Amino acid sequence: MKKTCKEHISLKEILLLLKENIAPLNKTISLSTTDSHSVFVGKILARDVCSKRNVPHYPASAVDGYAVRACDTGYASPATPAKIEKGNFLWVNTGSVVPENFDAVVMVEDTTIDEHCLYVFNAVSKGTNVRPVGEDIAKGNIIARKGDLLSIFHKALFVAAGVKEIEVKAPPRACFVPTGNEIVDINTLKELKQLPPGKIPETNSVLLAELFQKWGYSLDVLPLTKDDPKALGDILKLAIKDYDLVLMGAGTAKGKRDHSAKVLSEQGKLVFRWVRMKPGRPVIMAVVEGKPVVALPGFPVSTLVASWSVVYPLLQLLEKGKISEEYLSEAIGTREVIKVELGDHYSARQGVSEWLKVQCAEINGRKMSWVTSSGASSMMPLTEADGFSLVNEEALEIPKGSLIDVWLVRKNNWERRAVYQGSNDPGIEHTIGFIRAKNADLIIRSVGSLGGVLALARGECHIAACHLLDPKTGEYNTSYIEKFDVKKEWERVVLYKRLQGLIVRRGNPKKIKGISDLAKEVVIVNRQAGSGTRVLLDYLLGKANIAPTDVKGYENIAVTHFDAASKVAYGSADVALGIKAVADALDLDFVPLIEEPFEIVIPKRHFEHYGVKAFLDSINEKAWKETIINLGGYRLIR
Amino acid sequence: MKKTCKEHISLKEILLLLKENIAPLNKTISLSTTDSHSVFVGKILARDVCSKRNVPHYPASAVDGYAVRACDTGYASPATPAKIEKGNFLWVNTGSVVPENFDAVVMVEDTTIDEHCLYVFNAVSKGTNVRPVGEDIAKGNIIARKGDLLSIFHKALFVAAGVKEIEVKAPPRACFVPTGNEIVDINTLKELKQLPPGKIPETNSVLLAELFQKWGYSLDVLPLTKDDPKALGDILKLAIKDYDLVLMGAGTAKGKRDHSAKVLSEQGKLVFRWVRMKPGRPVIMAVVEGKPVVALPGFPVSTLVASWSVVYPLLQLLEKGKISEEYLSEAIGTREVIKVELGDHYSARQGVSEWLKVQCAEINGRKMSWVTSSGASSMMPLTEADGFSLVNEEALEIPKGSLIDVWLVRKNNWERRAVYQGSNDPGIEHTIGFIRAKNADLIIRSVGSLGGVLALARGECHIAACHLLDPKTGEYNTSYIEKFDVKKEWERVVLYKRLQGLIVRRGNPKKIKGISDLAKEVVIVNRQAGSGTRVLLDYLLGKANIAPTDVKGYENIAVTHFDAASKVAYGSADVALGIKAVADALDLDFVPLIEEPFEIVIPKRHFEHYGVKAFLDSINEKAWKETIINLGGYRLIR
Repeated sequence: MKKTCKEHISLKEILLLLKENIAPLNKTISLSTTDSHSVFVGKILARDVCSKRNVPHYPASAVDGYAVRACDTGYASPATPAKIEKGNFLWVNTGSVVPENFDAVVMVEDTTIDEHCLYVFNAVSKGTNVRPVGEDIAKGNIIARKGDLLSIFHKALFVAAGVKEIEVKAPPRACFVPTGNEIVDINTLKELKQLPPGKIPETNSVLLAELFQKWGYSLDVLPLTKDDPKALGDILKLAIKDYDLVLMGAGTAKGKRDHSAKVLSEQGKLVFRWVRMKPGRPVIMAVVEGKPVVALPGFPVSTLVASWSVVYPLLQLLEKGKISEEYLSEAIGTREVIKVELGDHYSARQGVSEWLKVQCAEINGRKMSWVTSSGASSMMPLTEADGFSLVNEEALEIPKGSLIDVWLVRKNNWERRAVYQGSNDPGIEHTIGFIRAKNADLIIRSVGSLGGVLALARGECHIAACHLLDPKTGEYNTSYIEKFDVKKEWERVVLYKRLQGLIVRRGNPKKIKGISDLAKEVVIVNRQAGSGTRVLLDYLLGKANIAPTDVKGYENIAVTHFDAASKVAYGSADVALGIKAVADALDLDFVPLIEEPFEIVIPKRHFEHYGVKAFLDSINEKAWKETIINLGGYRLIR
Repeated sequence: MKKTCKEHISLKEILLLLKENIAPLNKTISLSTTDSHSVFVGKILARDVCSKRNVPHYPASAVDGYAVRACDTGYASPATPAKIEKGNFLWVNTGSVVPENFDAVVMVEDTTIDEHCLYVFNAVSKGTNVRPVGEDIAKGNIIARKGDLLSIFHKALFVAAGVKEIEVKAPPRACFVPTGNEIVDINTLKELKQLPPGKIPETNSVLLAELFQKWGYSLDVLPLTKDDPKALGDILKLAIKDYDLVLMGAGTAKGKRDHSAKVLSEQGKLVFRWVRMKPGRPVIMAVVEGKPVVALPGFPVSTLVASWSVVYPLLQLLEKGKISEEYLSEAIGTREVIKVELGDHYSARQGVSEWLKVQCAEINGRKMSWVTSSGASSMMPLTEADGFSLVNEEALEIPKGSLIDVWLVRKNNWERRAVYQGSNDPGIEHTIGFIRAKNADLIIRSVGSLGGVLALARGECHIAACHLLDPKTGEYNTSYIEKFDVKKEWERVVLYKRLQGLIVRRGNPKKIKGISDLAKEVVIVNRQAGSGTRVLLDYLLGKANIAPTDVKGYENIAVTHFDAASKVAYGSADVALGIKAVADALDLDFVPLIEEPFEIVIPKRHFEHYGVKAFLDSINEKAWKETIINLGGYRLIR
């Protein structure tokens, strides 16, 4: 046993340190085969199981028919049936006892019977259609072995073999202690009308409970504990008494309220802290009274990846005495591991393993994946991810097109999923529900109008959309599209017209009336280069003879209308150019400037794509059109 | 809706008939996000879920540090830090509220503090390290959609978004009615000391309960019901009231006690009966009061495959309104679907889909599979199967070496699994426990001594074993091995000597003293051609000048010592040539004849194989040797 706490370790070192410091539980429990509530599947046998009886335990008929003496059937054939007198045969069902005075069974199909005799059309030899005692299972034979992982078949087998109880390895008893002054536990949450500012709902126990349930373990959640070394120490002492594995929530970093390391080293010894992974870095593992304790980082995604990489292998070690080679696949609960093309260049952080959430789709026969938002605080990207990928520590730059390994976590109907790249637009987002109702799916990548046209040219999406103003001609889209659609294979559809304008706070405190006001004492939030809205802003500024350098906040970038409007709502900017629908959604004021055509572009060969068809059907649906109109600032022209 | 019952339908027709006759339940239930007992994973959303609050719902610090006004940090740099007076900054933890009078947060790492002032080493702009309201999730936004399959992440997401209740599709309520006069239910079984002849434990409810649990559904087991149309009719009426899906056990064939079809057609209409598959043929599906009823065949394997092919798609149809394309994979709960070489020729039954249980191993880089016993009555082969394969109706003969699709149901450590082909021997069977303790595995195929040598020559096993007497020389094994080991690459090890003799019933009622008695009024059971014991019998008969035609039962074949001895025990034969260990195990009498060397043959290149090494280590273990000695009739000579 090492004395010093290892710091800044790699994912692989976790396993070594766990194995070095944690011994298997070696506890067993017995399960009753006659208890309908005990679940056998997934348990590990702690000792060999021998059959307590023969199956069958009596000579049993294998068919419906007549028990006879084989010698009485002589040389019977359809032409010369054997005739057997009453008393010398007996009707038996499949599974019935063949009494001792008989030694074979003729199938009912091979006989006829009248009131005196049975006529047998095919001779049988001794033992025909009689299942001897112990044919399936002989009494005393080993029917399952120590170490076997029980499947759904074992419990029924044990009942059949007369086994009343079996010994299995005891699953580790685990608990989770949520901590944090800012946290509100589930029970308090139930009563609360309004969550006060600064308070955060306790969700990690919910996530962990679902995770443990999926792994086949259970998890007790102990009371929420304050960020106070004394309180944490007390609950840890209690937990260690009752549980084989203790998980503590948060308090793992170096903030003023992070007491986990101190409390753990007082009561036991720290084994490691800081793992070279992102997210999940501030995880601590300690041994207290010989039992493993893991202090998990507080952000949900960090809790998740720390559970995959530390908690799951710990559970395996405690229960089975070994960590399986594919422990990460098992922990993630993947449907399959696939190799897919990375859809965008990824700059990795060398020296740190990175967990990526990805969405996947197939375009022109290429399976591609895109990394989604990597914030550790949000759970939304988790529910939207198709899979996860782990970038190893050595990686630096991963070029677009590289093959990466992805653990898929949900079913992907590759051929029914269309990919949209292009301008960010709430109307497009509203198609998803309609598309899914058609058993198809749409991935939306808001890469800006120009990004969408480029993606289409590179064959990286099925559908693009743009609202690109040509400053020279004052015309929308055509010049951009013609430049890239070299073979004239793209179809264009004007989906609707959108009202663009200046989004300002309620009441328009800065009295912004038009573009010329942007050169005054106001701060704007801009959109990324290549977005249609950015092109429009530059055009309008040019027409008003305003230089970008005269506009404060010109370099502040938001990548969606919603992001930009949020910054106005919160006050980190005074104004943003954007669409009316978003101003309405966030209850902001809006100064209308221009109506622009929002155009969909689809290569002809994609019109037969299942997902594209579902998209096209959706935008023709009345219900979708109504939704769009209600968003505000949209005008349907089809 | 079709009126007539379809008979003898194919697997695919099942799906069509289910879809034609069964409508989705369209019932929903609400789940509380604050109920720690409600499991969300696996449920299907019945309507869109919108966020009830912004996450975060207040401007929150993204780091540990000091809330400041961005303008106060001016052009701060490490060389020229900004100095901020007390009262103009505030300590904030990650997640804390950033009060209204501040607009940015500087990380603690970028500051020093004394009793009067905070020194900031890097200027920040408005909004830096402040997470705006609704950054993760905006109030009112759709966070999960109707039809979404909930993952382990959703419940925590809903709690975070202030969602207290969600609507999901109600899982079908299902029940199983065990039937049969010969059946003993689990509760009665608990009390019974001894199971009377002709009685069979009720195991199908146990198997179905584990299966439903694995599928994520629950199943109620109703009381055992007699084979009586009135009783069956009564319980069906009750069941139909309370459940969305009723399963009935057995009574599906054409025997005298098979009443299911009659009862079902009286109360509803039969949709189909007899499915062209083996096993599982006598399955019946009916609609009673608009609800589906499935009468399952009684043998456990038949129940299983009927559940996969009828019950699981029914559950999907009821819950989701559609049957997934991979419903069989999902029903079987496969780890993966692979293509493997068929290790033996298989003669299929044309016109019938056949379910095969297979064991798999890799030899010389070839992934191979062998079909195991196909009896529908026994559960043992289920727990021992690595996977299942479905032979389609069109197949006739499937030549050895054909690639077949296998649904793997358990983890296969391909590279750690050795394959033994050769003579049937209880001593070899006893190595398995020792080998598994070494994290390796052994597949035993009892193909006879000659079969083993041939398999080795064809590269179809790692280890062979034989006891082949050369009638010309009186010497064992050498002449056979040299004929096939052309390149002299095989190593030979005499594992032990085994005592062969005549196995007879207790008390030797036929007074059999030696080989010459086999020509008298006794019936033998023989072993298959190519087995060492068969070669020995032929040799001994030849020496005694007895022609095979003079021996009754010479053509009765058993493929293992145990099978042969069982036939003697049950009385379908009087005598068998076999080893003492088996006579001892079955408590039979034994007339010793000859001691033979039992020899292991392993090609040199397999000595480094993980599984072969584990085998070789096992046969050198003291505990294994003791086990062998205790079997009786073995003499260790190493």
